[in-house]
Amino acid sequence: MAPHGSHGSSGSADDSPSARTSVDVHAARVDAALEPLRTRALESVELAHALGRVTFDDVRSPIDLPPFRNSQMDGYAVRAADVASAPVSLPVVAEVAAAAGAPAPLRPGTAVKIMTGAPVPEGADTIVPVEDTLAANDYVSISRGREAGEYIREPGSDLRAGQAIVPWRTRLASRHLAALAAAGITDVDVIDRVRIAVISTGSELVAPGEPLGPGQIPDSNGVALAAAAEAAGADVVLHARTHDDPPQLAALLDEAVALGAELILTSGGISMGDHEVVRELLEPLGAVVDVLAMQPGGPQALASWPGLEGTAAVLVVCFPGNPVSSQLSFELFVAPALREIAGLPEAGRETRVLDSAVRSITGRRQFLRGRRTDGGGVTTVAGPSSHLVAALAASDVLIVIPEDVTELAAGDSVETWEL
Amino acid sequence: MAPHGSHGSSGSADDSPSARTSVDVHAARVDAALEPLRTRALESVELAHALGRVTFDDVRSPIDLPPFRNSQMDGYAVRAADVASAPVSLPVVAEVAAAAGAPAPLRPGTAVKIMTGAPVPEGADTIVPVEDTLAANDYVSISRGREAGEYIREPGSDLRAGQAIVPWRTRLASRHLAALAAAGITDVDVIDRVRIAVISTGSELVAPGEPLGPGQIPDSNGVALAAAAEAAGADVVLHARTHDDPPQLAALLDEAVALGAELILTSGGISMGDHEVVRELLEPLGAVVDVLAMQPGGPQALASWPGLEGTAAVLVVCFPGNPVSSQLSFELFVAPALREIAGLPEAGRETRVLDSAVRSITGRRQFLRGRRTDGGGVTTVAGPSSHLVAALAASDVLIVIPEDVTELAAGDSVETWEL
Repeated sequence: MAPHGSHGSSGSADDSPSARTSVDVHAARVDAALEPLRTRALESVELAHALGRVTFDDVRSPIDLPPFRNSQMDGYAVRAADVASAPVSLPVVAEVAAAAGAPAPLRPGTAVKIMTGAPVPEGADTIVPVEDTLAANDYVSISRGREAGEYIREPGSDLRAGQAIVPWRTRLASRHLAALAAAGITDVDVIDRVRIAVISTGSELVAPGEPLGPGQIPDSNGVALAAAAEAAGADVVLHARTHDDPPQLAALLDEAVALGAELILTSGGISMGDHEVVRELLEPLGAVVDVLAMQPGGPQALASWPGLEGTAAVLVVCFPGNPVSSQLSFELFVAPALREIAGLPEAGRETRVLDSAVRSITGRRQFLRGRRTDGGGVTTVAGPSSHLVAALAASDVLIVIPEDVTELAAGDSVETWEL
Repeated sequence: MAPHGSHGSSGSADDSPSARTSVDVHAARVDAALEPLRTRALESVELAHALGRVTFDDVRSPIDLPPFRNSQMDGYAVRAADVASAPVSLPVVAEVAAAAGAPAPLRPGTAVKIMTGAPVPEGADTIVPVEDTLAANDYVSISRGREAGEYIREPGSDLRAGQAIVPWRTRLASRHLAALAAAGITDVDVIDRVRIAVISTGSELVAPGEPLGPGQIPDSNGVALAAAAEAAGADVVLHARTHDDPPQLAALLDEAVALGAELILTSGGISMGDHEVVRELLEPLGAVVDVLAMQPGGPQALASWPGLEGTAAVLVVCFPGNPVSSQLSFELFVAPALREIAGLPEAGRETRVLDSAVRSITGRRQFLRGRRTDGGGVTTVAGPSSHLVAALAASDVLIVIPEDVTELAAGDSVETWEL
């Protein structure tokens, strides 16, 4: 029983570390919200467009591989019994090229010239490679005996009809496509891509390339999140921006739903200012708006937007508007699930050695931008501010400083995340 | 001085190891032939299509980043001198939202409410975050003094106009696209993709999915090489197949040239059989046809095909027709240069521990198919035969057995190449 008036961990003052939600709590919350996206529908694609897609189910071969008994060498198909008393000379009575159709059976005491991949005549049970023979006047001389089965590829010796060529949830590489093609398969069932809409908010935003009025900046978050979603294997069905105008945002959310988006990412409009369009529109609908114990990227929100008639509401994951914050937030909260769904490897994490001292705020998990140096080192790139978009571009890792660490010296080890 | 009659390493009989060309010699030969492909032309692409492309040159920012002096926080723009004697209370005379246009200068002794990203009024030199203030009746109370410059982002503090945002030969990730967009850039000059034609040869080949007559098999090499070229960053301009018919092959080579192919890959038709279409057509034109000290993939060739009037001849790299051989040959001889041109990482190579004994032919570098096991181990997948296309699909590494090694025991270390 909780005593009256007890001071729980959420009872402290607003700016204390414990008043902020931990990164891990929010990450778990977003991950749980993303869970339904892991159930994918199938989509049939031609092999020529299947590179990098993920199999929906085991793909089974309709035929044996190889499909028929064939020669592994250019040479002569003979009966092992006929060459047991080698050296021998056998009459060459026919030739089987690849694709020559079904060859006639081999008569005892004769040889048939055969090319690599060509069907082995019935009755032949070994292939003598051409380099081990001498041919003259329609006869072939064979200098030593051979074992039955030598250089013959039996049907199904690679894979039997009905066996899986590629297991389910395999990200298709060229070698998988080769095996599918060898089995005569032209189309493969893959999981559909997660359909994502990206909406940037902010009255100061203009499309990149448009002339900048006073106080205006190009929208870079939309470009970044759309590209990051694509790199994580998703399909970006909408990429748009809105002023700090709730009806305009609502119209874009409706458009995203109409385009089939399963996940909507917004940037901006969720902090403590007076024009927070995402909060204004989505908080009355039950959005969870939160300030996390992290830097950059403190403000975060999770919401849903009504689906079309008869469909479920669509998940909206809301990032802060500062460019570094929004990119980092995507990497932290959304990218891992998308990568897993798309069969992509996790982002690399490794311990490296700081080449200079760093400071961090107590109670915040800080993500500094860094660049790897030779010999397992890492150097910080510019400062911690969340507007340093060029510095982020110049970085190749994030340096993670845990919540309880406020100072690190040159030579200390840190965890780094590959960008 | 070499004595008369000495037995050099190249003086042995045909089937001896030294009669075969070493893998490294052929690799160097192909790499030298690929050298001209490293000189790329530029292609301008929209940011939305630039993910994964490689910058042609340094991309410089036309503007300062950030482009104007702006606030890092929601709060109040003041003069540090006016809050030096804090606690103080200042009249709030205006508000600057993001995108509100150029704000009026700050009169001494007043405060202006300001949103994150909004332009800082002339005269203001510090921002007091909203959480450090109390506002009432058009006045704001500020409890402590602030340093000049605090929470103000100066123009150019991230990057100055004229500086490089992204250096040349950078493979563009989302963070680079974000920085380019932030600078108002809409299109970026990237290097063009290497244009590749893939031609499978063999009278036994039919398109995957077509009914198989006796002795026929689906063409899997074309699918595999086209996908592998795509995965290595190239653009496949032609993917075709031909019977063992030199005029038909010649017509396809002409078509490849007409489509702008800079590199043509063929499979099949270069070994010792009687219907070697690639040799028949290209050897009279000076093709280097060779047998390498490797397994699988011994036969290899390098040729060129006349270009169109006024253009250079086009390089033709010829692989053997067995599916495992052709895929391995691409990986070995062509993929490294293509990946480097496309800014992709090299295929991973690591030492692993064999979980069972293997044998290899003396004088051949053998590439066995393997699968990684936990704890740094590797297990072989099926046998060494070059027709085991499903076994290759089931593998995730190649196990490399050097030329001079004929036996390895379980527990021995081997080099593995990630597939």
